[in-house]
Amino acid sequence: MSTLTLPADDKPMAVTTGCLHGVGIGPGDPELLTVKAVRLIEASPVIAYFAKAGRRGNARGIVEPWLKPHHEEMPLSYPVTTEIHFQDPSYVSQLGSFYDEAAQAVAARLDAGQDVALLCEGDPLFYGSFMHLYVRLRGQYRTSVCPGVTGMSGCWTAAGAPITWGDDVLTVLPGTLSREALAERLAGTDAAVFMKLGQNFPKVRAVLAEAGLLDRAVYIERGTMPGEKVIPLAEKTDDAAPYFSIVIVPGQGRRP
Amino acid sequence: MSTLTLPADDKPMAVTTGCLHGVGIGPGDPELLTVKAVRLIEASPVIAYFAKAGRRGNARGIVEPWLKPHHEEMPLSYPVTTEIHFQDPSYVSQLGSFYDEAAQAVAARLDAGQDVALLCEGDPLFYGSFMHLYVRLRGQYRTSVCPGVTGMSGCWTAAGAPITWGDDVLTVLPGTLSREALAERLAGTDAAVFMKLGQNFPKVRAVLAEAGLLDRAVYIERGTMPGEKVIPLAEKTDDAAPYFSIVIVPGQGRRP
Repeated sequence: MSTLTLPADDKPMAVTTGCLHGVGIGPGDPELLTVKAVRLIEASPVIAYFAKAGRRGNARGIVEPWLKPHHEEMPLSYPVTTEIHFQDPSYVSQLGSFYDEAAQAVAARLDAGQDVALLCEGDPLFYGSFMHLYVRLRGQYRTSVCPGVTGMSGCWTAAGAPITWGDDVLTVLPGTLSREALAERLAGTDAAVFMKLGQNFPKVRAVLAEAGLLDRAVYIERGTMPGEKVIPLAEKTDDAAPYFSIVIVPGQGRRP
Repeated sequence: MSTLTLPADDKPMAVTTGCLHGVGIGPGDPELLTVKAVRLIEASPVIAYFAKAGRRGNARGIVEPWLKPHHEEMPLSYPVTTEIHFQDPSYVSQLGSFYDEAAQAVAARLDAGQDVALLCEGDPLFYGSFMHLYVRLRGQYRTSVCPGVTGMSGCWTAAGAPITWGDDVLTVLPGTLSREALAERLAGTDAAVFMKLGQNFPKVRAVLAEAGLLDRAVYIERGTMPGEKVIPLAEKTDDAAPYFSIVIVPGQGRRP
């Protein structure tokens, strides 16, 4: 924790640097924020959130009921508006520069003594963009993380599907992996969650069909949010799947 | 949804059956209940929770700040107070009878028109005891599930350890599995969470040592609760580990 001294009238005033709070805001229903998340948001003068360029972003929408007039909003706009493949050579460098700049913008507020609540859909430390600012800033500033309900919990709840029983192994698989990798990991697990669908959805469905698991799988879109869809995968005939939709294969373990 | 008719003075009164709410109460910090969980608890006349015989139970302790004088408590006491091995032939039948009786006790309150909030540590549909009552009762009664922050999220947050980056695969492994099964699943994943430790802890440590992962692993006990312990696994020298402690192996995926 560092301090800086600003001149104020005739005597210097010590300003303690602010704290960066990574605040998990849950799967989408504003009521699924934790009590702690609401408290941190209310107490933070600056509310930061990632968003696609030109959009307000989903995180901002989720916390809308909790925002107050005193809040200053700080959108952090991604440099790309469409999905680019993560193996594209420009992907890592573009995103890296973006996170550097976002970290500097947040640091400026912390230096000025303001706490910043950075909103994170789901849980901040589970595939969260927050982590990229967290590792850049936690050496120099106070930071805290408030865990949240994951998007996958929201989805299996929407489906009314217990995901793991007894000694079931659960594997979380990004749909971005190769067909071969997905099939191999799926073969070694009892329950599975496929994330990051989007254009990977037809590949995920093919892997599940090949494994004979189509009848156990469920597709969930916008879990816990308006427009929520829960569709048995065997009944979903089209290939449309937003990037944040999910496919689950519930476990079938011990049930006394 | 069924109704029953009770005589009330000179005209019969229809009583709608109550709703069973499976309420996720998070990893341990009472502030990590969701706003929805608090609302459901406050609105439910009956608060049910699983507990070891003769104990009030951890779930009851977590929601203590949210209980009101109007609440009627309904402890559901497990028939066994010590860990018995799940392959013990009496295990399944004993637990099965217990869940049958617990379901009947809850059903009696629902029949009387009372809503019942059944507290679930972590998330109700992720290895939760609630699921056993949910599948027994949801055919006959109204039910709802309120997702919660999982114990594992609370633990990796306590450790300040981002668990999955980019395209990391995450595998959740019950420590009850055989050493061979644990080693095999560990070899095919980028990040891992070991649950259900207790007497399985030395086995889990041996598997991680053999895989050369001791230096990446972190042991967490009572994450987000008083008495929280976060210990790099390589520095933990004893074999004591409560059943609900956790070992994590954070992923090392793409970090732009």
